[in-house]
Amino acid sequence: MSQPLTQTDRTTISRHAERGSYDREAAWSIIDEALVAHVGLDAGNGVMVIPMTFARMGDDIVLHGAVASRWLSSFEGGRDVSVCFTLLDGLVLARSAFSHSMNYRSVVAFGRARLVTDPAEKQDAFRALLDHLLPGRWEDCRQPDAKEIAATTVLKVPLDEASIKVRSGPPKDAAKDMSLEYWAGVIPMQLAAGEPVADPGIDPGMPVPGYATGYSRGR
Amino acid sequence: MSQPLTQTDRTTISRHAERGSYDREAAWSIIDEALVAHVGLDAGNGVMVIPMTFARMGDDIVLHGAVASRWLSSFEGGRDVSVCFTLLDGLVLARSAFSHSMNYRSVVAFGRARLVTDPAEKQDAFRALLDHLLPGRWEDCRQPDAKEIAATTVLKVPLDEASIKVRSGPPKDAAKDMSLEYWAGVIPMQLAAGEPVADPGIDPGMPVPGYATGYSRGR
Repeated sequence: MSQPLTQTDRTTISRHAERGSYDREAAWSIIDEALVAHVGLDAGNGVMVIPMTFARMGDDIVLHGAVASRWLSSFEGGRDVSVCFTLLDGLVLARSAFSHSMNYRSVVAFGRARLVTDPAEKQDAFRALLDHLLPGRWEDCRQPDAKEIAATTVLKVPLDEASIKVRSGPPKDAAKDMSLEYWAGVIPMQLAAGEPVADPGIDPGMPVPGYATGYSRGR
Repeated sequence: MSQPLTQTDRTTISRHAERGSYDREAAWSIIDEALVAHVGLDAGNGVMVIPMTFARMGDDIVLHGAVASRWLSSFEGGRDVSVCFTLLDGLVLARSAFSHSMNYRSVVAFGRARLVTDPAEKQDAFRALLDHLLPGRWEDCRQPDAKEIAATTVLKVPLDEASIKVRSGPPKDAAKDMSLEYWAGVIPMQLAAGEPVADPGIDPGMPVPGYATGYSRGR
């Protein structure tokens, strides 16, 4: 059993506390299924939230971007960020408008992002990013050279101060609404992959690699 | 033609400027397809990013939560937030690890959230939230009563200072990598709906409403 996540004032779930938890492995499972992280930071002239690709490496989250990126260049001394991962599982239709909801699994984390400068550690991060996107791909592409590694800013955020929030299951109408003649239930939602589309430069006879066919995230 | 979005220092796209734009209607189309907004704010002890349901009402975004919610209760005087909307359209597999990417459409916005207190305006927001989730549902459920409206905190954020970032199409490998014998292309991704699941309390003979069958977002 791993240590639970660190519960602080700002990670304590105040609303719908029954939906909250601090189980580390449950958080990793949500994070590993997500494809996009929403990263918030104080941009100097206010809070900014941007979507980023990411990977988990043990208890850290790896983010990356171009060295030339304006806001990534500001991490030299480390910066506090909040990172949010959200999986949408369904629309919850209740008999009352008030009780409508969504089924979801989310992790909200807080941590100090540090700049990764060691080239070998950056190379490992590259690999983690590809493995997160699509297991099998790292071995089947040209791996980064020294120039590409130098041109990439890599950040690591320790994910320890974090909380999970999950809603699942049917709607929860008030008892007085249960006899109303409206349909109620859940429309399940899932991020689904379509058929791979080959680059125009690919020989039409070249098969799509097995790791790219029937792609799916999650459970 | 509507006015373009307001371009400021923090909404100016510095990396991949060719992916950026400030067209208001294009932003609304991305926002109207999204189901979750990631809202960032300074929580007093650091930046916090949380996922929220939302709706667009003209040039405003409406957010809501329970009056008892700790962080929503802090908006009395108005608060600056950043709101991000992200649609993931595909995984982009290039011949080089370095050129891997994602196809996406995103909007990053900055604005001052204000508390909506007028009950009629709150009722309109409730309707917008349901219409955004599932057109047709508002007319087919019990609408909120005065007590429910009072129990709900509604925020409006004017979305004017915002920018769009979009990537689409095939991978863009460097010329020197084009002859490498790795498969390259795009795995399209989409948020897809499954078959509606009726609440256990629903009469099995009751048909699923037309607006809930074949549900899909966007294009």
